[in-house]
Amino acid sequence: MPTIGFYFDFMSPYGYLGAEGIEALAARRGLDVDWRPVLLGITVLKVMGLKGLADTPLKRDYVARDVPRLARWMGVPFARGREGPMVSLPAMRTFVWLKDRDPDAARRFGRAVFRAQWAEGRDLSEPEALAAFGRTLGIDPSELLAAIGDPTVKERLKAAVDAAVGAGVFGVPTFAVDGELFWGADRLPMVERWIETGGW
Amino acid sequence: MPTIGFYFDFMSPYGYLGAEGIEALAARRGLDVDWRPVLLGITVLKVMGLKGLADTPLKRDYVARDVPRLARWMGVPFARGREGPMVSLPAMRTFVWLKDRDPDAARRFGRAVFRAQWAEGRDLSEPEALAAFGRTLGIDPSELLAAIGDPTVKERLKAAVDAAVGAGVFGVPTFAVDGELFWGADRLPMVERWIETGGW
Repeated sequence: MPTIGFYFDFMSPYGYLGAEGIEALAARRGLDVDWRPVLLGITVLKVMGLKGLADTPLKRDYVARDVPRLARWMGVPFARGREGPMVSLPAMRTFVWLKDRDPDAARRFGRAVFRAQWAEGRDLSEPEALAAFGRTLGIDPSELLAAIGDPTVKERLKAAVDAAVGAGVFGVPTFAVDGELFWGADRLPMVERWIETGGW
Repeated sequence: MPTIGFYFDFMSPYGYLGAEGIEALAARRGLDVDWRPVLLGITVLKVMGLKGLADTPLKRDYVARDVPRLARWMGVPFARGREGPMVSLPAMRTFVWLKDRDPDAARRFGRAVFRAQWAEGRDLSEPEALAAFGRTLGIDPSELLAAIGDPTVKERLKAAVDAAVGAGVFGVPTFAVDGELFWGADRLPMVERWIETGGW
């Protein structure tokens, strides 16, 4: 089974739509999805030298309107509970820690975090809130909190971000098929066609 | 017949793909397209305070690969002749001048400029090259050159850009349907569905 690379950051609502979309596509076609963490705070601010969306006039307003519209178009539940940017670092570190132990558990955690935030409007920015949430998924809260502060986990996340940047990833969601990158949840039909046809 | 607003800047290859796509869509559905100039140099650099694509690592490389791929996906001819950014100001001013006199002629000019640049790899950055090109469309070269330097034309373009920004436009192509904005040539299927259904 070919694997689709899925680059994400929990802070992005488009990342959530991408997660829902790529998992649905993978299920339809019997493919595997490899969830690959990346941090927009690194790629957008540091590597590209741009500003965050919240500090970008016009585009900020467009995205606020576009995300729920795209969600409805995709048939994906979306709650606009959170207007400000979410702090994703604790959840991203938790993901990396889980993935090293059990990739399937990490993927379930990833989908659950995305849904909690963007379909239910919950805020998992704080480690304590995340630990309480993790408990509902069977993750030991004290282990989760320890992982968030673990230098080895921090290093593993940093290495993952470096690998993503090295592969040319700058935004989320980005889908990788046979080394070909597709940026944006709205590119899912193109991803599916690429898989179907082998490219053009 | 409902009118589709089409915001463009000749410097953008995605703008070219958007022009081809929206004109095809409009022809299929018997709709009119109102071509509306906007300058990325104003919206991206000044209003949003971002950098140009050529100065943006990673994204620059992605776009260089994505544009021809999207063109093939859309079935639109594309020649990668020009790697650097084109200077669009002379052509944009010519467009504004023509539109005030004859909107249909301006639209024909717009399509021809986009195709010359992005399907044939020609460079119309310089007024002289543009005037020679305009002659092939029946536009008097000396009138065209005079229009490019005309303060009234400059003001008209500035007003058009201000109106675009006031409407929330920041990138190209942007399509406006019933006041709803859609950014990106890859959003054309969504634009068509919106027209078909009246929105969701």
